[in-house]
Amino acid sequence: MSLAQEMFAIAPATGKADLSASQLKLLSGKARWIFRVSEAGFPTIPTIAITRAAWEALQAQRVKKDPRLRTHWVSCLFRLVDKEGKPPALVVRTSASRHNGGLMPARIGIPPPTNEADSVDPARPLARAIKDAFDSYGYEAGLWTGTRSAEERARQIVLVQAMAEGDIEQFLTRDAVTGAPGPAPANAAGVPKLPESCGALVSLLDAKAGRHMICVVAVSGGEARFLSARPLQASIAAELEAAVDRVGAGVWTRQNAVNRTDPARLAQLLHPRLTSINGAPPIATGLGVSPGAASGFIAFTAEDAARMRARGKHCILVVTETGPGDVEGMKAATGILTARGGMTSHAGVIARITGKPCVAGVRNLSVNPLEMSCQIGDKEFRSGDRLTIDGSDGSVYAGMLPLSQPHIGGALGTLLDWSDASRTIAVRTNVETVESAQTALSFGAEGIGLARSEHMFFSPERMVALRRLILSEDENDRTRALEGLVDYQTGDYAALFAVMRGMPVTVRLFDPPLHEFLPRSEEDVEDTAASLGLAVRALRLRLERIAEVNPMLGHRGVRLAITYPEILQMQIQALMAGARAASETQREPVLLEVMVPFVSTASEVAFVRERVMAIAGNSGLLRSDRARLSFGTMIELPRACLRAGDIAQMVDFFSFGTNDLTQTTFGISRDDAPTFLASYQRKAIYERDPFVTIDEKGVGEMISIAIARGKAANPRLKIGICGEHAGDPASLAYFAGLGVDYVSCSPYRVPIARLTLAQASA
Amino acid sequence: MSLAQEMFAIAPATGKADLSASQLKLLSGKARWIFRVSEAGFPTIPTIAITRAAWEALQAQRVKKDPRLRTHWVSCLFRLVDKEGKPPALVVRTSASRHNGGLMPARIGIPPPTNEADSVDPARPLARAIKDAFDSYGYEAGLWTGTRSAEERARQIVLVQAMAEGDIEQFLTRDAVTGAPGPAPANAAGVPKLPESCGALVSLLDAKAGRHMICVVAVSGGEARFLSARPLQASIAAELEAAVDRVGAGVWTRQNAVNRTDPARLAQLLHPRLTSINGAPPIATGLGVSPGAASGFIAFTAEDAARMRARGKHCILVVTETGPGDVEGMKAATGILTARGGMTSHAGVIARITGKPCVAGVRNLSVNPLEMSCQIGDKEFRSGDRLTIDGSDGSVYAGMLPLSQPHIGGALGTLLDWSDASRTIAVRTNVETVESAQTALSFGAEGIGLARSEHMFFSPERMVALRRLILSEDENDRTRALEGLVDYQTGDYAALFAVMRGMPVTVRLFDPPLHEFLPRSEEDVEDTAASLGLAVRALRLRLERIAEVNPMLGHRGVRLAITYPEILQMQIQALMAGARAASETQREPVLLEVMVPFVSTASEVAFVRERVMAIAGNSGLLRSDRARLSFGTMIELPRACLRAGDIAQMVDFFSFGTNDLTQTTFGISRDDAPTFLASYQRKAIYERDPFVTIDEKGVGEMISIAIARGKAANPRLKIGICGEHAGDPASLAYFAGLGVDYVSCSPYRVPIARLTLAQASA
Repeated sequence: MSLAQEMFAIAPATGKADLSASQLKLLSGKARWIFRVSEAGFPTIPTIAITRAAWEALQAQRVKKDPRLRTHWVSCLFRLVDKEGKPPALVVRTSASRHNGGLMPARIGIPPPTNEADSVDPARPLARAIKDAFDSYGYEAGLWTGTRSAEERARQIVLVQAMAEGDIEQFLTRDAVTGAPGPAPANAAGVPKLPESCGALVSLLDAKAGRHMICVVAVSGGEARFLSARPLQASIAAELEAAVDRVGAGVWTRQNAVNRTDPARLAQLLHPRLTSINGAPPIATGLGVSPGAASGFIAFTAEDAARMRARGKHCILVVTETGPGDVEGMKAATGILTARGGMTSHAGVIARITGKPCVAGVRNLSVNPLEMSCQIGDKEFRSGDRLTIDGSDGSVYAGMLPLSQPHIGGALGTLLDWSDASRTIAVRTNVETVESAQTALSFGAEGIGLARSEHMFFSPERMVALRRLILSEDENDRTRALEGLVDYQTGDYAALFAVMRGMPVTVRLFDPPLHEFLPRSEEDVEDTAASLGLAVRALRLRLERIAEVNPMLGHRGVRLAITYPEILQMQIQALMAGARAASETQREPVLLEVMVPFVSTASEVAFVRERVMAIAGNSGLLRSDRARLSFGTMIELPRACLRAGDIAQMVDFFSFGTNDLTQTTFGISRDDAPTFLASYQRKAIYERDPFVTIDEKGVGEMISIAIARGKAANPRLKIGICGEHAGDPASLAYFAGLGVDYVSCSPYRVPIARLTLAQASA
Repeated sequence: MSLAQEMFAIAPATGKADLSASQLKLLSGKARWIFRVSEAGFPTIPTIAITRAAWEALQAQRVKKDPRLRTHWVSCLFRLVDKEGKPPALVVRTSASRHNGGLMPARIGIPPPTNEADSVDPARPLARAIKDAFDSYGYEAGLWTGTRSAEERARQIVLVQAMAEGDIEQFLTRDAVTGAPGPAPANAAGVPKLPESCGALVSLLDAKAGRHMICVVAVSGGEARFLSARPLQASIAAELEAAVDRVGAGVWTRQNAVNRTDPARLAQLLHPRLTSINGAPPIATGLGVSPGAASGFIAFTAEDAARMRARGKHCILVVTETGPGDVEGMKAATGILTARGGMTSHAGVIARITGKPCVAGVRNLSVNPLEMSCQIGDKEFRSGDRLTIDGSDGSVYAGMLPLSQPHIGGALGTLLDWSDASRTIAVRTNVETVESAQTALSFGAEGIGLARSEHMFFSPERMVALRRLILSEDENDRTRALEGLVDYQTGDYAALFAVMRGMPVTVRLFDPPLHEFLPRSEEDVEDTAASLGLAVRALRLRLERIAEVNPMLGHRGVRLAITYPEILQMQIQALMAGARAASETQREPVLLEVMVPFVSTASEVAFVRERVMAIAGNSGLLRSDRARLSFGTMIELPRACLRAGDIAQMVDFFSFGTNDLTQTTFGISRDDAPTFLASYQRKAIYERDPFVTIDEKGVGEMISIAIARGKAANPRLKIGICGEHAGDPASLAYFAGLGVDYVSCSPYRVPIARLTLAQASA
């Protein structure tokens, strides 16, 4: 394309624009919509475009007194002149592909050039406005690619329009809140009075753009002329309604609707939200570490929280920081508010697991549990006072604000149903309680992909048994600690199988990050010593002995099953008894999948498999056709990926634990990473946080190697993903390309996975 | 081979044995030497052999009254009958390939069978003795292969000999201590009176066996007849003398001597050793965590140790446990004795790095530094009393026992010189001080492959600066901490380059496992607060803030260079200044190699490279042809292995840190592994401790992938290995097969690496 072709009319005053393919590609920003609307025959303000490359060449020729490009430019300007032949006053507008705060506002009322030289003279208003418009695009640096490429800069355009006559009016193509077809109000002034023809403009733009648009028209003499339009970021709820409406109107297919919805934005719909804040400012702000909003009475202790819950009252647990002893209280509470801690604090981790909204690290909160009061800033709150927190943005409000509860229905339900039609990869969930399982089922989960068995011990009396187990000195100690634990768990498992009626349930064997279960504060140590019948000093000695330098790489996962086979025995017995109990009371089969965590060698898997099969064989379970046992392993260490061929011969499935695999592949502890990750992102060392979006080039290759070797050795091997990446849209799209059979994510991420995988499968 | 052929004479009474190739392969244990000696023409007691397979077939035919094999057996027994035709009394001996405590002792004086049936009748003495002999081989299980294979059992043999007449005498083919040619005493009784001919027997056996043998002959009428022989495990010193002697005698080539020496056993020669214990029992036993023996006066503090050293006295530092503040004292001491800690304790790590013998975890030691005394068991020792420790076996002795100092000379020196002739892979060393470098050079090191720059801060005044740096809150703090550090290091580096004259010196950038450098005890925290001019409470807060959950995977390595570029700047400036200083005073060039630790992405390497090159470019160093700068990276994380292609384009060399690579590939913290590694080895989950011998199937594949990708992207890439595996013979043999250019190990391992790599290159 010659530079002469880079100055052209997109909406000529008379006749139609006839753009070449290369010219069409230059239409970024508003230019695109002006061309489309004009092309469709709707009256449009005359507009021409010029690229930076053409403009700079024009200026260079001007200096050399070369008239060639100027001739083209002038003839282009003439396309703004209507049949009456009077050159209009002009408007110069930017038309950037990305919105950018520094862009020059439209410069209006520019007198038309009086002669050819005037049309390119930077001392004259037109050329000066064009130059200023190009300058305002700036040198914005791409975050990872360095400065914007020269080629991209050369292709930037500026628009010159005829000055519109009449009233300039704005409106939306769809309602910003409901998504209903417009014209809809663009601002508090409401919808302006518009000619009838604007209805057709709305339909036209909505179909062409497929999203909410802010539309500007000039109304004069009862006629509207299109001036410009730009997209509006509507709420996801409005977008979903609009998408379903477009399908109903025959503008989109169902698959169009599925493909054009951003899965990442669904998260906003899947937690309770503040419906409106009504101007009441937050009284404090912390870190939103578990999303969603919660309102309730203040509780300062786990007992308080349990008591309020028993009375059917919502409560917010307010503490300095949480520890293992608070888990029961956190489960009873509707939301959690802490003075200390961050994203990876105990409070944050447990809140996200249990799906409770949580605001942590509120600096101006001080809690006095003895006096049952707390201070937030200069306000004092007592037990019985009310608070509202928003775990999505970290805000804390006084009083109870109205919340909207999440549910899958309406447009979201319709869209997810459509998405299931094209999805080929199953979506399971990571839960271990009946309540969470029910939530996940209501969100469309198709099984449990990760039930963390150690989480069954999050209640005060079981925690004692678990601590006794962890702190045991010998086999006798352990055997005593294990007494009774089988019964507890049998009931839990039976209930879990029952609620999942016939869907697969993957139970991961005991993988306690021991330190998370042990007492830390002085007080907690004393309480624990009392409950275990140990002297405080003796308990301290044991705690010291089992303290680990790097617990993430310590005595955990399958290593516990091998060193303490009696724990394995206890777990499998409880699972078998639970499966038997469930299969006796329901028609559907129990699909139990036992999963071994943190393996690095095939010999570990062989050791556990032999024992699991022996216990299962004696349980009567395998003789029943009502329960089926499948045996598999987590793949979450680099060595397990490399030895996947050996390991696959001993298992029915692999489930990739992408959190730990990321930690070991990178050699980064997620808990400790915050000290340098911010600097790494600022200095462009990492493109993305590898704990949020899977690192395709490293961790991804590890997974690919494991899948290839595993399937070569065992073609019937099932492949799942159960790390937190299984709830991240970018990661899910990558996993879909690896040929996985299922992913498993937290309940609130299930809809996101359903939609993302439908897009990936299409 | 038919079963009839599995019963045959190996030393017939008359004539020569004429064995088929298959029969030769059956000659395990003593049978081999009896055949060889007889074959060489030395008078030998008549001997026949029968395999278990043949014996069992013989018994089966006996039951079925089938006479075929019995006919062979009887004719075989007749080969024991001498020319005079009188059947001799018989002896039945086992002849196992491996020594085994449960083997049947020779059964002597068995009457010869009186008829054919008698010769196979298990109720009669001959057959009963043969049966008992086979039974005594047992079912010894191979540790990893399960029970010994059926095939191997079928090939086990038992010997039947004519009963020898005369005196039975024992002697060694070489002196057990000096390795001088025998006959030499086999026991306290000394060398027996032997016929002249035994000299020829000694030469014959020594040449055939190539190792020390215990030889048994029957002496009668001035004539010796050979009866049996078995190998003796001599000391490595004696074996080396013997090997050099055999080369001198033309029995072996130099390469034979190199190939037949076990590199793992050299370690015994490379530390001071107790020459003899003279029956004095140890007064205590702990864990030998750093090998070698040391004798000296007791010192209870670093200052004591420094004072004694200044007076030229050897001392043993006796403390409850060591911490960063003790490093200077440890360096001044000749040996270290602690009441607490194990293999990975601070004491153990620093002792091994500095090459000091160390016994740790002595339970019945209690130290009272204030009173300058300690209690070992029920004995009290005071400053000025003397102790001897043996860090190889953990023994502690009262008083000063005589020690022998290691040196490379004599037979060891000769053998290592020969080994260098066939070696193609360079051997460097891991040191950071001039003293250690000199030791390593005396052991034949060809450069420094790993100088851990953070170890330059192991002195009280520098430790203050280092702690100030680690605890710094902002850039100002850090800049102040860095003041002066450049000067300290410049001198150190200049001295190190000078002592290494012209050999490569690889300096690893700062990679502190922070917690190792920080105060832990109450007292230490108080001292540190004082030296930093901080309130104790403020210091505690900072310590809390930088505490890491998993320091091994935390804010370390290249991450520090990126988050705190001023540390990188200080290091490179000091290195450049040191190189300039050294190159001005010596003829040889300075070959400095800067190495980045703990990288996982090419972007990290690019970041550091750019800064290093900029600082070096301004230093005047690169303009001098007397100093050459090379830039490389550690490869010690799985992701670095996978991305080796990208990384290789930015570096001159890779050096594999196999310790960290093993930790991350397996997901095992070496510090925490002891809690389950013992169980893992007992239950045969691991064949070998992966921290001792490289895991070829996992970590090895990681290294192979990295070398292949690295060399494909940069064919001139140099490859080194600098983890502790570089001192392990089995691992070294594996590395040699990967095509590495050099390995780097601790000074005391340099001779082991030289020998192992000579064997691998041959």
